[in-house]
Amino acid sequence: MPERSDLPVTTRTTHRRLREQGSTSRRDLDDILRSGVICHLGVMVDGDPMVLPTAYGVAGQVVYLHGSVASRSLVAAPQATICVTVTHVDGLVLARSVFEHAVNYRSAMIYGTPRLVTDPAEKLAGLRALAEHIVPGQWDYARQPNKKELAATTLLALSLAEASVKIRTGPPDDGDSPDADLPVWAGVLPLAAAWQSPEPDPVLPASIPLPPHITALANRPVR
Amino acid sequence: MPERSDLPVTTRTTHRRLREQGSTSRRDLDDILRSGVICHLGVMVDGDPMVLPTAYGVAGQVVYLHGSVASRSLVAAPQATICVTVTHVDGLVLARSVFEHAVNYRSAMIYGTPRLVTDPAEKLAGLRALAEHIVPGQWDYARQPNKKELAATTLLALSLAEASVKIRTGPPDDGDSPDADLPVWAGVLPLAAAWQSPEPDPVLPASIPLPPHITALANRPVR
Repeated sequence: MPERSDLPVTTRTTHRRLREQGSTSRRDLDDILRSGVICHLGVMVDGDPMVLPTAYGVAGQVVYLHGSVASRSLVAAPQATICVTVTHVDGLVLARSVFEHAVNYRSAMIYGTPRLVTDPAEKLAGLRALAEHIVPGQWDYARQPNKKELAATTLLALSLAEASVKIRTGPPDDGDSPDADLPVWAGVLPLAAAWQSPEPDPVLPASIPLPPHITALANRPVR
Repeated sequence: MPERSDLPVTTRTTHRRLREQGSTSRRDLDDILRSGVICHLGVMVDGDPMVLPTAYGVAGQVVYLHGSVASRSLVAAPQATICVTVTHVDGLVLARSVFEHAVNYRSAMIYGTPRLVTDPAEKLAGLRALAEHIVPGQWDYARQPNKKELAATTLLALSLAEASVKIRTGPPDDGDSPDADLPVWAGVLPLAAAWQSPEPDPVLPASIPLPPHITALANRPVR
Protein backbone atom coordinates (compact mmCIF):
# COMPACT_ATOMS: atom_id res chain seq x y z
CA MET A 1 0.00 0.00 0.00
CA PRO A 2 1.41 3.39 -0.90
CA GLU A 3 1.51 5.89 1.91
CA ARG A 4 -1.02 8.66 1.87
CA SER A 5 1.65 11.18 1.00
CA ASP A 6 2.79 9.25 -2.06
CA LEU A 7 2.28 10.61 -5.53
CA PRO A 8 -0.40 8.88 -7.58
CA VAL A 9 0.95 6.87 -10.51
CA THR A 10 -0.59 7.55 -13.91
CA THR A 11 0.25 6.39 -17.42
CA ARG A 12 2.46 9.43 -17.87
CA THR A 13 4.20 9.16 -14.52
CA THR A 14 4.88 5.42 -14.51
CA HIS A 15 8.62 4.86 -14.37
CA ARG A 16 9.24 2.45 -17.20
CA ARG A 17 13.01 2.36 -17.20
CA LEU A 18 15.80 2.74 -14.64
CA ARG A 19 13.19 2.19 -11.99
CA GLU A 20 15.68 2.66 -9.20
CA GLN A 21 15.73 6.33 -10.18
CA GLY A 22 11.98 6.81 -9.82
CA SER A 23 10.52 8.24 -6.64
CA THR A 24 6.88 8.50 -5.64
CA SER A 25 7.67 10.52 -2.53
CA ARG A 26 5.75 13.73 -2.11
CA ARG A 27 8.58 15.04 0.06
CA ASP A 28 11.07 14.55 -2.79
CA LEU A 29 8.76 16.49 -5.10
CA ASP A 30 8.41 19.34 -2.62
CA ASP A 31 12.17 19.48 -2.02
CA ILE A 32 12.96 19.65 -5.73
CA LEU A 33 10.41 22.38 -6.35
CA ARG A 34 11.45 24.39 -3.30
CA SER A 35 15.10 24.54 -4.26
CA GLY A 36 14.66 25.13 -8.00
CA VAL A 37 15.37 28.52 -9.49
CA ILE A 38 13.54 28.19 -12.81
CA CYS A 39 11.56 25.50 -14.57
CA HIS A 40 11.33 24.45 -18.20
CA LEU A 41 7.79 24.71 -19.56
CA GLY A 42 6.84 22.36 -22.37
CA VAL A 43 3.85 23.53 -24.37
CA MET A 44 2.46 22.90 -27.83
CA VAL A 45 2.61 25.99 -30.04
CA ASP A 46 1.26 25.68 -33.58
CA GLY A 47 1.51 21.91 -33.38
CA ASP A 48 5.10 21.65 -32.22
CA PRO A 49 6.56 21.33 -28.74
CA MET A 50 8.30 24.40 -27.36
CA VAL A 51 10.47 24.29 -24.24
CA LEU A 52 10.82 27.61 -22.43
CA PRO A 53 12.81 28.49 -19.33
CA THR A 54 10.58 30.43 -16.96
CA ALA A 55 10.10 31.38 -13.33
CA TYR A 56 7.61 29.58 -11.11
CA GLY A 57 6.17 29.60 -7.63
CA VAL A 58 4.47 26.99 -5.50
CA ALA A 59 1.52 27.45 -3.14
CA GLY A 60 -0.23 24.47 -1.67
CA GLN A 61 -0.99 21.94 -4.39
CA VAL A 62 -0.35 24.30 -7.27
CA VAL A 63 2.55 25.52 -9.40
CA TYR A 64 2.09 29.07 -10.68
CA LEU A 65 3.59 30.32 -13.94
CA HIS A 66 3.31 33.84 -15.25
CA GLY A 67 4.10 35.93 -18.23
CA SER A 68 2.90 38.67 -20.51
CA VAL A 69 -0.66 38.44 -21.80
CA ALA A 70 0.99 38.66 -25.24
CA SER A 71 3.04 35.49 -24.73
CA ARG A 72 2.22 32.86 -27.36
CA SER A 73 3.20 30.00 -25.09
CA LEU A 74 1.05 31.10 -22.15
CA VAL A 75 -1.93 31.85 -24.38
CA ALA A 76 -1.67 28.37 -25.88
CA ALA A 77 -1.11 26.60 -22.58
CA PRO A 78 -4.60 26.47 -21.01
CA GLN A 79 -5.98 24.63 -24.04
CA ALA A 80 -3.92 21.49 -23.67
CA THR A 81 -1.63 19.45 -21.50
CA ILE A 82 1.65 21.08 -20.55
CA CYS A 83 4.71 19.66 -18.84
CA VAL A 84 6.69 21.63 -16.26
CA THR A 85 10.12 20.23 -15.44
CA VAL A 86 12.47 21.35 -12.66
CA THR A 87 15.95 19.83 -12.72
CA HIS A 88 18.93 20.02 -10.40
CA VAL A 89 22.24 18.69 -11.75
CA ASP A 90 24.25 17.45 -8.76
CA GLY A 91 27.26 15.94 -10.51
CA LEU A 92 28.81 13.96 -13.31
CA VAL A 93 29.08 10.21 -12.80
CA LEU A 94 32.41 9.26 -14.34
CA ALA A 95 32.46 5.51 -14.84
CA ARG A 96 35.13 3.11 -16.13
CA SER A 97 33.22 2.74 -19.38
CA VAL A 98 31.73 5.54 -21.46
CA PHE A 99 28.51 3.52 -21.58
CA GLU A 100 28.03 3.74 -17.80
CA HIS A 101 28.58 7.47 -17.60
CA ALA A 102 25.62 9.22 -16.04
CA VAL A 103 24.48 12.38 -14.34
CA ASN A 104 23.48 12.68 -10.68
CA TYR A 105 20.35 14.75 -10.71
CA ARG A 106 16.98 15.40 -9.15
CA SER A 107 14.11 16.13 -11.49
CA ALA A 108 10.38 16.72 -11.16
CA MET A 109 8.01 16.63 -14.14
CA ILE A 110 4.48 17.89 -13.62
CA TYR A 111 1.78 17.21 -16.19
CA GLY A 112 -1.63 18.75 -16.52
CA THR A 113 -3.86 21.28 -18.21
CA PRO A 114 -3.24 24.60 -16.53
CA ARG A 115 -6.00 26.86 -15.33
CA LEU A 116 -6.02 30.56 -16.21
CA VAL A 117 -6.22 32.45 -12.93
CA THR A 118 -8.77 35.27 -13.10
CA ASP A 119 -9.82 35.66 -9.45
CA PRO A 120 -8.05 38.83 -8.21
CA ALA A 121 -7.21 37.39 -4.79
CA GLU A 122 -5.74 34.20 -6.23
CA LYS A 123 -3.85 36.22 -8.83
CA LEU A 124 -2.16 38.24 -6.10
CA ALA A 125 -1.45 35.08 -4.09
CA GLY A 126 0.05 33.36 -7.12
CA LEU A 127 2.27 36.32 -8.01
CA ARG A 128 3.31 36.48 -4.37
CA ALA A 129 4.30 32.80 -4.52
CA LEU A 130 6.38 33.56 -7.64
CA ALA A 131 8.16 36.52 -6.00
CA GLU A 132 8.71 34.71 -2.71
CA HIS A 133 9.87 31.47 -4.36
CA ILE A 134 13.52 32.45 -4.66
CA VAL A 135 13.87 35.52 -2.46
CA PRO A 136 11.63 35.19 0.58
CA GLY A 137 10.73 38.63 1.83
CA GLN A 138 10.82 40.31 -1.57
CA TRP A 139 7.02 40.57 -2.00
CA ASP A 140 6.60 42.72 1.09
CA TYR A 141 9.79 44.67 0.37
CA ALA A 142 9.32 45.70 -3.27
CA ARG A 143 6.39 47.62 -4.74
CA GLN A 144 3.53 45.21 -5.33
CA PRO A 145 1.72 45.09 -8.69
CA ASN A 146 -0.85 47.76 -9.47
CA LYS A 147 -4.06 47.24 -11.45
CA LYS A 148 -2.46 47.99 -14.80
CA GLU A 149 0.41 45.58 -14.13
CA LEU A 150 -1.99 42.86 -12.96
CA ALA A 151 -4.01 43.28 -16.16
CA ALA A 152 -0.84 42.92 -18.23
CA THR A 153 0.11 39.65 -16.52
CA THR A 154 -1.15 36.18 -17.39
CA LEU A 155 -1.08 33.78 -14.45
CA LEU A 156 -1.49 30.03 -14.88
CA ALA A 157 -2.11 27.47 -12.14
CA LEU A 158 -1.01 23.87 -12.65
CA SER A 159 -2.04 21.19 -10.17
CA LEU A 160 0.70 19.08 -8.62
CA ALA A 161 -1.62 16.06 -8.79
CA GLU A 162 0.25 14.36 -11.66
CA ALA A 163 3.98 14.48 -11.09
CA SER A 164 6.95 12.26 -11.78
CA VAL A 165 10.14 12.45 -9.74
CA LYS A 166 13.47 11.01 -10.78
CA ILE A 167 16.61 11.05 -8.66
CA ARG A 168 20.07 9.59 -9.25
CA THR A 169 22.69 9.71 -6.56
CA GLY A 170 25.88 7.88 -5.76
CA PRO A 171 28.89 6.43 -7.57
CA PRO A 172 29.04 4.77 -11.00
CA ASP A 173 27.25 1.47 -11.53
CA ASP A 174 30.27 -0.42 -12.87
CA GLY A 175 32.18 -0.84 -9.62
CA ASP A 176 31.17 -4.51 -9.48
CA SER A 177 31.64 -5.22 -13.21
CA PRO A 178 34.72 -6.61 -15.01
CA ASP A 179 35.51 -2.98 -15.92
CA ALA A 180 36.40 -2.36 -12.25
CA ASP A 181 39.74 -4.04 -13.01
CA LEU A 182 40.65 -1.34 -15.53
CA PRO A 183 43.15 1.32 -14.41
CA VAL A 184 40.51 4.02 -14.86
CA TRP A 185 39.54 6.57 -12.20
CA ALA A 186 35.85 6.40 -11.39
CA GLY A 187 33.70 8.56 -9.18
CA VAL A 188 31.57 11.65 -9.12
CA LEU A 189 32.48 15.21 -10.04
CA PRO A 190 29.93 17.19 -7.99
CA LEU A 191 28.35 20.37 -9.30
CA ALA A 192 26.94 23.09 -7.07
CA ALA A 193 25.21 26.42 -7.67
CA ALA A 194 25.72 29.36 -5.35
CA TRP A 195 24.45 32.91 -5.08
CA GLN A 196 27.25 35.43 -5.45
CA SER A 197 27.73 38.97 -4.08
CA PRO A 198 24.82 41.29 -4.89
CA GLU A 199 25.55 43.89 -7.58
CA PRO A 200 23.71 47.17 -6.98
CA ASP A 201 22.04 48.86 -9.94
CA PRO A 202 24.58 51.50 -11.07
CA VAL A 203 21.92 54.19 -10.66
CA LEU A 204 20.94 53.09 -7.13
CA PRO A 205 21.51 55.86 -4.54
CA ALA A 206 24.30 54.81 -2.17
CA SER A 207 22.02 55.66 0.75
CA ILE A 208 19.78 52.64 0.08
CA PRO A 209 21.10 49.66 2.05
CA LEU A 210 20.97 46.02 1.05
CA PRO A 211 18.05 44.55 3.03
CA PRO A 212 18.66 41.56 5.33
CA HIS A 213 16.48 39.16 3.30
CA ILE A 214 18.77 39.58 0.28
CA THR A 215 21.92 39.52 2.40
CA ALA A 216 20.69 36.18 3.74
CA LEU A 217 21.14 34.61 0.28
CA ALA A 218 24.38 36.31 -0.77
CA ASN A 219 27.41 34.05 -1.13
CA ARG A 220 25.41 30.99 -0.07
CA PRO A 221 24.71 27.75 -1.88
CA VAL A 222 21.34 27.52 -3.62
CA ARG A 223 19.08 25.39 -1.40
CA MET B 1 21.79 42.65 -44.21
CA PRO B 2 22.44 39.91 -41.69
CA GLU B 3 26.00 38.70 -41.46
CA ARG B 4 26.79 35.34 -42.94
CA SER B 5 27.25 33.86 -39.48
CA ASP B 6 23.82 34.96 -38.32
CA LEU B 7 21.12 32.44 -37.51
CA PRO B 8 18.29 32.23 -40.03
CA VAL B 9 14.97 33.57 -38.73
CA THR B 10 11.95 31.31 -39.13
CA THR B 11 8.37 31.49 -37.86
CA ARG B 12 9.38 29.57 -34.76
CA THR B 13 12.53 31.56 -34.06
CA THR B 14 11.15 35.05 -34.63
CA HIS B 15 11.46 37.04 -31.42
CA ARG B 16 7.98 38.46 -30.93
CA ARG B 17 8.38 39.98 -27.48
CA LEU B 18 11.17 41.56 -25.46
CA ARG B 19 13.11 41.84 -28.68
CA GLU B 20 16.11 43.32 -26.94
CA GLN B 21 16.65 39.86 -25.46
CA GLY B 22 16.76 38.10 -28.82
CA SER B 23 20.05 37.31 -30.47
CA THR B 24 20.68 36.02 -33.95
CA SER B 25 24.40 35.56 -33.34
CA ARG B 26 25.85 32.18 -34.17
CA ARG B 27 28.62 32.85 -31.67
CA ASP B 28 26.09 33.32 -28.87
CA LEU B 29 24.47 30.00 -29.80
CA ASP B 30 27.82 28.22 -29.81
CA ASP B 31 28.82 29.73 -26.45
CA ILE B 32 25.56 28.71 -24.78
CA LEU B 33 25.78 25.16 -26.10
CA ARG B 34 29.47 24.81 -25.24
CA SER B 35 29.04 25.77 -21.60
CA GLY B 36 25.79 23.90 -20.93
CA VAL B 37 25.82 20.75 -18.83
CA ILE B 38 22.46 19.28 -19.80
CA CYS B 39 19.58 20.27 -22.07
CA HIS B 40 15.84 19.94 -21.73
CA LEU B 41 14.30 17.90 -24.56
CA GLY B 42 10.73 18.66 -25.51
CA VAL B 43 9.04 15.85 -27.39
CA MET B 44 5.47 14.77 -28.02
CA VAL B 45 4.66 11.44 -26.38
CA ASP B 46 1.15 10.04 -26.84
CA GLY B 47 -0.11 13.45 -27.87
CA ASP B 48 1.24 15.44 -24.94
CA PRO B 49 4.46 17.41 -24.56
CA MET B 50 7.10 15.87 -22.30
CA VAL B 51 10.17 17.80 -21.11
CA LEU B 52 13.13 15.64 -20.17
CA PRO B 53 16.52 16.64 -18.81
CA THR B 54 19.21 14.86 -20.80
CA ALA B 55 22.85 15.02 -21.81
CA TYR B 56 23.93 16.34 -25.19
CA GLY B 57 26.95 16.86 -27.35
CA VAL B 58 27.72 19.15 -30.27
CA ALA B 59 29.74 18.35 -33.38
CA GLY B 60 29.75 20.74 -36.30
CA GLN B 61 26.20 21.76 -37.16
CA VAL B 62 24.54 19.04 -35.12
CA VAL B 63 23.38 18.44 -31.55
CA TYR B 64 23.53 14.77 -30.53
CA LEU B 65 21.18 13.23 -27.97
CA HIS B 66 21.32 9.66 -26.78
CA GLY B 67 19.48 7.18 -24.66
CA SER B 68 18.32 3.62 -24.34
CA VAL B 69 16.67 2.03 -27.37
CA ALA B 70 13.79 1.38 -24.96
CA SER B 71 13.25 5.08 -24.23
CA ARG B 72 9.75 6.21 -25.16
CA SER B 73 10.82 9.77 -25.73
CA LEU B 74 13.70 8.93 -28.06
CA VAL B 75 11.63 6.42 -30.02
CA ALA B 76 8.93 9.06 -30.53
CA ALA B 77 11.34 11.85 -31.38
CA PRO B 78 12.35 11.13 -34.99
CA GLN B 79 8.73 11.22 -36.11
CA ALA B 80 8.05 14.84 -35.31
CA THR B 81 9.52 18.18 -34.40
CA ILE B 82 11.36 18.35 -31.10
CA CYS B 83 12.70 21.31 -29.17
CA VAL B 84 16.04 21.19 -27.37
CA THR B 85 16.60 23.99 -24.86
CA VAL B 86 19.82 24.83 -23.03
CA THR B 87 19.55 27.47 -20.31
CA HIS B 88 22.07 29.21 -18.06
CA VAL B 89 20.68 31.21 -15.14
CA ASP B 90 23.13 34.01 -14.42
CA GLY B 91 21.29 35.92 -11.73
CA LEU B 92 18.10 37.34 -10.28
CA VAL B 93 17.16 40.85 -11.33
CA LEU B 94 15.72 42.47 -8.22
CA ALA B 95 13.81 45.57 -9.25
CA ARG B 96 12.00 48.26 -7.26
CA SER B 97 8.66 46.81 -8.34
CA VAL B 98 7.69 43.14 -8.31
CA PHE B 99 6.46 43.60 -11.89
CA GLU B 100 9.95 44.45 -13.18
CA HIS B 101 11.64 41.48 -11.51
CA ALA B 102 13.43 39.31 -14.04
CA VAL B 103 16.10 36.68 -14.49
CA ASN B 104 19.44 37.22 -16.17
CA TYR B 105 19.88 34.19 -18.41
CA ARG B 106 21.21 32.83 -21.64
CA SER B 107 19.05 30.34 -23.47
CA ALA B 108 19.18 28.49 -26.78
CA MET B 109 16.18 26.71 -28.25
CA ILE B 110 16.76 24.42 -31.20
CA TYR B 111 13.86 23.14 -33.29
CA GLY B 112 13.78 20.39 -35.83
CA THR B 113 12.99 16.81 -36.66
CA PRO B 114 15.87 14.69 -35.43
CA ARG B 115 17.58 12.07 -37.53
CA LEU B 116 18.18 8.58 -36.14
CA VAL B 117 21.91 7.91 -36.52
CA THR B 118 22.57 4.43 -37.92
CA ASP B 119 25.94 4.85 -39.62
CA PRO B 120 28.50 3.19 -37.28
CA ALA B 121 31.16 5.86 -37.80
CA GLU B 122 28.76 8.73 -37.13
CA LYS B 123 27.36 6.89 -34.12
CA LEU B 124 30.83 6.67 -32.58
CA ALA B 125 31.52 10.31 -33.44
CA GLY B 126 28.24 11.40 -31.88
CA LEU B 127 28.81 9.43 -28.68
CA ARG B 128 32.30 10.86 -28.54
CA ALA B 129 30.84 14.38 -28.79
CA LEU B 130 28.52 13.54 -25.90
CA ALA B 131 31.34 12.20 -23.70
CA GLU B 132 33.70 15.04 -24.55
CA HIS B 133 31.07 17.75 -24.15
CA ILE B 134 31.57 18.22 -20.43
CA VAL B 135 34.80 16.40 -19.64
CA PRO B 136 37.22 16.81 -22.54
CA GLY B 137 39.61 13.87 -22.57
CA GLN B 138 37.15 11.37 -21.12
CA TRP B 139 36.46 9.54 -24.42
CA ASP B 140 40.06 8.49 -24.86
CA TYR B 141 40.51 7.82 -21.14
CA ALA B 142 37.52 5.58 -20.37
CA ARG B 143 36.62 2.30 -22.08
CA GLN B 144 34.84 3.09 -25.32
CA PRO B 145 31.52 1.43 -26.21
CA ASN B 146 31.56 -2.15 -27.52
CA LYS B 147 29.20 -3.56 -30.14
CA LYS B 148 26.60 -4.65 -27.61
CA GLU B 149 26.58 -1.25 -25.94
CA LEU B 150 26.37 0.53 -29.29
CA ALA B 151 23.37 -1.64 -30.23
CA ALA B 152 21.67 -0.75 -26.95
CA THR B 153 22.07 2.99 -27.54
CA THR B 154 19.81 5.23 -29.59
CA LEU B 155 21.57 8.27 -31.01
CA LEU B 156 19.68 11.21 -32.48
CA ALA B 157 21.13 14.06 -34.54
CA LEU B 158 19.38 17.43 -34.56
CA SER B 159 20.50 20.13 -36.96
CA LEU B 160 21.41 23.53 -35.51
CA ALA B 161 19.83 25.20 -38.56
CA GLU B 162 16.75 26.46 -36.71
CA ALA B 163 17.71 27.98 -33.39
CA SER B 164 16.53 30.83 -31.22
CA VAL B 165 18.82 32.54 -28.72
CA LYS B 166 17.67 34.77 -25.89
CA ILE B 167 19.94 36.63 -23.50
CA ARG B 168 19.19 39.04 -20.67
CA THR B 169 21.99 40.80 -18.86
CA GLY B 170 22.36 43.88 -16.70
CA PRO B 171 20.46 45.72 -13.98
CA PRO B 172 16.70 46.11 -13.55
CA ASP B 173 14.74 48.12 -16.12
CA ASP B 174 13.09 50.48 -13.64
CA GLY B 175 16.11 52.62 -12.80
CA ASP B 176 14.70 55.44 -14.93
CA SER B 177 11.09 55.06 -13.83
CA PRO B 178 9.22 56.86 -11.02
CA ASP B 179 9.87 53.74 -8.91
CA ALA B 180 13.56 54.72 -8.79
CA ASP B 181 12.57 57.23 -6.09
CA LEU B 182 11.42 54.43 -3.78
CA PRO B 183 13.73 53.45 -0.91
CA VAL B 184 14.10 49.95 -2.36
CA TRP B 185 17.41 48.25 -3.07
CA ALA B 186 17.69 47.21 -6.71
CA GLY B 187 20.31 45.24 -8.52
CA VAL B 188 21.35 41.75 -9.49
CA LEU B 189 21.97 38.72 -7.29
CA PRO B 190 24.33 36.68 -9.48
CA LEU B 191 24.20 32.90 -9.59
CA ALA B 192 27.15 30.71 -10.55
CA ALA B 193 27.71 26.99 -10.92
CA ALA B 194 31.02 25.38 -10.07
CA TRP B 195 32.52 21.90 -10.16
CA GLN B 196 33.45 20.70 -6.70
CA SER B 197 36.12 18.26 -5.47
CA PRO B 198 35.98 14.85 -7.20
CA GLU B 199 34.58 12.03 -5.02
CA PRO B 200 36.21 8.68 -5.83
CA ASP B 201 33.98 5.62 -6.09
CA PRO B 202 34.23 3.95 -2.64
CA VAL B 203 35.38 0.72 -4.32
CA LEU B 204 38.08 2.43 -6.43
CA PRO B 205 41.57 1.11 -5.64
CA ALA B 206 43.64 3.82 -4.01
CA SER B 207 46.41 3.15 -6.53
CA ILE B 208 44.39 4.69 -9.39
CA PRO B 209 45.18 8.41 -9.60
CA LEU B 210 42.83 11.18 -10.62
CA PRO B 211 43.76 11.95 -14.25
CA PRO B 212 44.78 15.51 -15.21
CA HIS B 213 41.79 16.09 -17.50
CA ILE B 214 39.42 15.65 -14.54
CA THR B 215 41.66 17.61 -12.17
CA ALA B 216 41.46 20.44 -14.69
CA LEU B 217 37.75 20.86 -13.94
CA ALA B 218 37.79 20.32 -10.19
CA ASN B 219 36.87 23.33 -8.05
CA ARG B 220 36.48 25.52 -11.11
CA PRO B 221 33.48 27.50 -12.36
CA VAL B 222 31.45 25.82 -15.10
CA ARG B 223 32.40 27.48 -18.39
